[in-house]
Amino acid sequence: MDVLAIVAHPDDAEIFCGGTLAKHAARGDDVTVAYMTRGEFGGFDTTEAALAETREAEARRAASVLGADVTFLDFKDGRITYSLENRLELVECIREHAPDIVLTHFADDMHPDHRATSRLVTDAYYMVSLPLLESEHPPCDPRNVYYFGKPTSSFDPTVIVDVTDHQETKEEAALEHESQIAWLEEHGGIDAEFSDFVESMRADAHTLGRQAGVTYAEGFTRLHETTVDFLD
Amino acid sequence: MDVLAIVAHPDDAEIFCGGTLAKHAARGDDVTVAYMTRGEFGGFDTTEAALAETREAEARRAASVLGADVTFLDFKDGRITYSLENRLELVECIREHAPDIVLTHFADDMHPDHRATSRLVTDAYYMVSLPLLESEHPPCDPRNVYYFGKPTSSFDPTVIVDVTDHQETKEEAALEHESQIAWLEEHGGIDAEFSDFVESMRADAHTLGRQAGVTYAEGFTRLHETTVDFLD
Amino acid sequence: MDVLAIVAHPDDAEIFCGGTLAKHAARGDDVTVAYMTRGEFGGFDTTEAALAETREAEARRAASVLGADVTFLDFKDGRITYSLENRLELVECIREHAPDIVLTHFADDMHPDHRATSRLVTDAYYMVSLPLLESEHPPCDPRNVYYFGKPTSSFDPTVIVDVTDHQETKEEAALEHESQIAWLEEHGGIDAEFSDFVESMRADAHTLGRQAGVTYAEGFTRLHETTVDFLD
Amino acid sequence: MDVLAIVAHPDDAEIFCGGTLAKHAARGDDVTVAYMTRGEFGGFDTTEAALAETREAEARRAASVLGADVTFLDFKDGRITYSLENRLELVECIREHAPDIVLTHFADDMHPDHRATSRLVTDAYYMVSLPLLESEHPPCDPRNVYYFGKPTSSFDPTVIVDVTDHQETKEEAALEHESQIAWLEEHGGIDAEFSDFVESMRADAHTLGRQAGVTYAEGFTRLHETTVDFLD
Amino acid sequence: MDVLAIVAHPDDAEIFCGGTLAKHAARGDDVTVAYMTRGEFGGFDTTEAALAETREAEARRAASVLGADVTFLDFKDGRITYSLENRLELVECIREHAPDIVLTHFADDMHPDHRATSRLVTDAYYMVSLPLLESEHPPCDPRNVYYFGKPTSSFDPTVIVDVTDHQETKEEAALEHESQIAWLEEHGGIDAEFSDFVESMRADAHTLGRQAGVTYAEGFTRLHETTVDFLD
Amino acid sequence: MDVLAIVAHPDDAEIFCGGTLAKHAARGDDVTVAYMTRGEFGGFDTTEAALAETREAEARRAASVLGADVTFLDFKDGRITYSLENRLELVECIREHAPDIVLTHFADDMHPDHRATSRLVTDAYYMVSLPLLESEHPPCDPRNVYYFGKPTSSFDPTVIVDVTDHQETKEEAALEHESQIAWLEEHGGIDAEFSDFVESMRADAHTLGRQAGVTYAEGFTRLHETTVDFLD
Repeated sequence: MDVLAIVAHPDDAEIFCGGTLAKHAARGDDVTVAYMTRGEFGGFDTTEAALAETREAEARRAASVLGADVTFLDFKDGRITYSLENRLELVECIREHAPDIVLTHFADDMHPDHRATSRLVTDAYYMVSLPLLESEHPPCDPRNVYYFGKPTSSFDPTVIVDVTDHQETKEEAALEHESQIAWLEEHGGIDAEFSDFVESMRADAHTLGRQAGVTYAEGFTRLHETTVDFLD
Repeated sequence: MDVLAIVAHPDDAEIFCGGTLAKHAARGDDVTVAYMTRGEFGGFDTTEAALAETREAEARRAASVLGADVTFLDFKDGRITYSLENRLELVECIREHAPDIVLTHFADDMHPDHRATSRLVTDAYYMVSLPLLESEHPPCDPRNVYYFGKPTSSFDPTVIVDVTDHQETKEEAALEHESQIAWLEEHGGIDAEFSDFVESMRADAHTLGRQAGVTYAEGFTRLHETTVDFLD
Repeated sequence: MDVLAIVAHPDDAEIFCGGTLAKHAARGDDVTVAYMTRGEFGGFDTTEAALAETREAEARRAASVLGADVTFLDFKDGRITYSLENRLELVECIREHAPDIVLTHFADDMHPDHRATSRLVTDAYYMVSLPLLESEHPPCDPRNVYYFGKPTSSFDPTVIVDVTDHQETKEEAALEHESQIAWLEEHGGIDAEFSDFVESMRADAHTLGRQAGVTYAEGFTRLHETTVDFLD
Repeated sequence: MDVLAIVAHPDDAEIFCGGTLAKHAARGDDVTVAYMTRGEFGGFDTTEAALAETREAEARRAASVLGADVTFLDFKDGRITYSLENRLELVECIREHAPDIVLTHFADDMHPDHRATSRLVTDAYYMVSLPLLESEHPPCDPRNVYYFGKPTSSFDPTVIVDVTDHQETKEEAALEHESQIAWLEEHGGIDAEFSDFVESMRADAHTLGRQAGVTYAEGFTRLHETTVDFLD
Repeated sequence: MDVLAIVAHPDDAEIFCGGTLAKHAARGDDVTVAYMTRGEFGGFDTTEAALAETREAEARRAASVLGADVTFLDFKDGRITYSLENRLELVECIREHAPDIVLTHFADDMHPDHRATSRLVTDAYYMVSLPLLESEHPPCDPRNVYYFGKPTSSFDPTVIVDVTDHQETKEEAALEHESQIAWLEEHGGIDAEFSDFVESMRADAHTLGRQAGVTYAEGFTRLHETTVDFLD
Repeated sequence: MDVLAIVAHPDDAEIFCGGTLAKHAARGDDVTVAYMTRGEFGGFDTTEAALAETREAEARRAASVLGADVTFLDFKDGRITYSLENRLELVECIREHAPDIVLTHFADDMHPDHRATSRLVTDAYYMVSLPLLESEHPPCDPRNVYYFGKPTSSFDPTVIVDVTDHQETKEEAALEHESQIAWLEEHGGIDAEFSDFVESMRADAHTLGRQAGVTYAEGFTRLHETTVDFLD
């Protein structure tokens, strides 16, 4: 099975779906993380170029911990726009990897880059299978798109993945984002949102997991509903 | 696996979850339908006693088509009340069957018997596992409660079961409720709701199924969220 | 009364509001369908130009069955963008027809062309009546915009039109989209979504209609609430 | 057409649906208000018996202004319970009047008497048409139940009645509840909720009406969806 | 200021609002916890009577850590019913304490005792201020009712209290429920819900707090909206 | 404290948040209203240029009544687009004023200018604090964004400001928009929406206020949740 996660910034893969990616990789699935940007706006006392380099390296190390391949799409941090041109770039990206499923941000996430990424991926999904849309790679037909977000009231997951056995890997991967941990703990979001980066991730996963009878979990919605064979 | 469906009236099992029950039965699960009442109010030109007899016989034949055992709980049609005494009767019923999962109506169904049944089952679920609650049968510990309803805006299923291969069985079972088909097509609900009993069931199943990529489906919500091992 | 439906692709008029358009036409209203695109991406083993020609012809035949006039707006299938320029084109289109009401897709439809069309129409609606906005046609003042979608959980109609007497016309019109039926049944949406094009439309209309006491219905939301004179 | 409004307390008819009742009465419909209680708890420096007498007289005068008949059901203010016995009393009440439509409180109103009334009426509605349910009056078959509430976020009306021409009558009727105006302005609800009884009613009707293009309106939801013949 | 929390079982005060109660107590407010039951069903290898004694003692120690007084209302665990008689008992309880605000469970909590408590308190709230309702204590007029629940999708708090400085006290109080910790970690709720009692409480408080810029928080909804003097 | 309201058109400040701005100004806060456009499309028998001049003068007088400074951002009425370029202009505007809080339209307002303004402000908010984003003014760090809308079902405020003592000022300021009152009462929105401009504003404020125990109020949602120190 081929899994493609398309995320806005280097640490989004770990924060939102790192346990799920690690779990799929661990059973032998091909997992790829496509980074829209290198997160080159997320720092101070540096330049965009230098930070891009640092964060790309961190992203590669983090993905390696998860067992995922990486690719960088060269959009600009804080400046991803919802345009037809960008949509067609994502069509190319998805066709190149021809995944079974795609993971990305949910559409109502407040961060402008997350929102734009979500909509671009959904729109591209509706085009990748069209034979008459010509591009470098042939059409493909992913089964579904899964959306992730933080366990807050505006994101209400309906698909919950047990990541208990992969929480440690997820946290280990997250710790590779050294430049961001300093930045987030000082600056990121509202005051105490990332006062302790790993404790935050663990609390979210535990709060969500307990509601479903496991210790740690990650949550998703999906574009198409799917069926189960039996109630369990 | 033991499946226990607790429904208010004889035809509710077929209308709401007949395909799912048939599917579980077909793979060898023990499936039981507990009827709160015999639906003895659903007719004319007869008596409650006579209708109860007719409908019990129809329910037995329908359940037989689905591959399910039946039990009758002797509540009164149109008069199920939400009382502690009734809740304790349901504790006894669930403990007697010690199912892995329980199926019942969703709590916001408008029909008063459906509503009362739903709440009695949910409340009983919280008590069946308590060692200090003494009763005829020992404590048991079902994994979850699943709720069914019609595919309308006030019931939004999050668990969808593919019943394509069992739709025919479901319809065949539904047709055993001969006394009700005449009654529903003449009287039931609002004007055209059951103008054609089987076509109604098929339209609902097809509308729901297509949203999830299959021909026919039934939908449920659940008391506890559960996890999946992998995204699919 | 003048009714203007603005739809993204040739078969959207029939799928979403064909019964309502046929009913309005049958009582003598002037009904026009404006097609944003010719749906020229919806096929294989052909070219965009050839498919556009085929589908325009099908759309003309289908609209003729409904009793509607047609106009084509020359946007590109799969590539409708939400731009000020496109909004102004829709201002011109609406002013040209000066309808009493406008029908279009609902804003949260997942298909990118449907979403863009919906927002462009709503935004244009706020501008068509402004005297200071100069254009080829004079200002006009439609009473309301009605939005359509599929009867799924994310589209919850509050205005339901009884189309029982026009369901046959609707299906007949839909069957004119020959090129699409082959395409949809093989490719369209998720697996079984259009396994049988007409059965799908009929199941949706029956599921929705029965909730309101009729055999077949179509559902809408509206931009402005309206009043009734009496409860019925 | 026969309209039956079943309200918990004497002034509820005017507050929630007085304009609609006046409008139906004005066109010649038979309108009846059934008061569950006489509101005999809503005062001070008096007794329940004395207050019941005062408020019954006020209710009769107010209903007379609206053009409605009245009946009193003899439940106790603040103590309406959701029991099978009470439901059967409402079955009798509805069968006695055999209305075309029934109006009552919405189920999630916070006031315990309003909630109980709403549920008792809905449950009774499901029983009034059953031939096998014997009672003093013969079965009847109202078309629908309409629910009213205050225009707050938890009550979201989907049926809006233009009462502009009857707002004056509504306010005149409301002013008959002299004992309540003193009580409500001093005590009722939270601090400023009824600081000026008539201004409150007018603000609510104006806020709701303007959203639908009229000066004053009242809002309802309904048990069954209904259809319209044409979009307007 | 007088704060009265009415909870179903001994440990509910700590789980749901322990930090808030500790914070109010710390600034000198009079805080009382009224326990509907002694939680005498929550154990094994014991009797209801013995467990009631154990848990009352634990509740007293826990409340003492929070700085709260306690009272026991003598309802039966697992068997709180929603009756007029029970409502009047809560009227008496609230009038006796004459609090400024009341805290209790939210109405849609799934646990039957929590649901019944919530509705009984809300209904009692509407009666405590009525002069004509005679009882042992005089009428009182609490300003508002606050509702608590777990930070899951069905409970969406709109009032968030920063309890960072009282999280330690809350956890210390929770640890007094020794008999429950063993019981919950072995039996309580679904599998991993309380695998580690204190870690669970901390994760919930951290997940909720971070969304509002603090380390630990508790969340509430309220019966009446209130105003702020200024935006902050 | 510095308060910055960013509104699409000259009269939006008074309609949506005039009482709140007046209240903050009255206690000595620095309040600025930034007008995206001069509302130069809102008239007839004039030109855009002439109307812009008239409305700018009216806006200055109205803001003066509220006690607020003004700035004009030179976007075009009816043509505000959601572009990266426009977002960066708003970054500059916010950095220039370095406010503690920002007020703007809510994202789901139907008016296209209101929607675009809302999203541009939210997106800009995520960028103003980034050190690596260079611009004319230095980074700043507003605490929160507050969103306003009309008290309809699609806007459900969670922060309510008591403006009773400033309602008169708000209405006085609104009356400065002479050119708009004529226009709105004749043309604006749907038929009776602004039949009496001041009565409309007063009805909305009274309907909202009474729900929270005050005479007049305005309502907001916010980007980040915030905490309270104590329940009140």
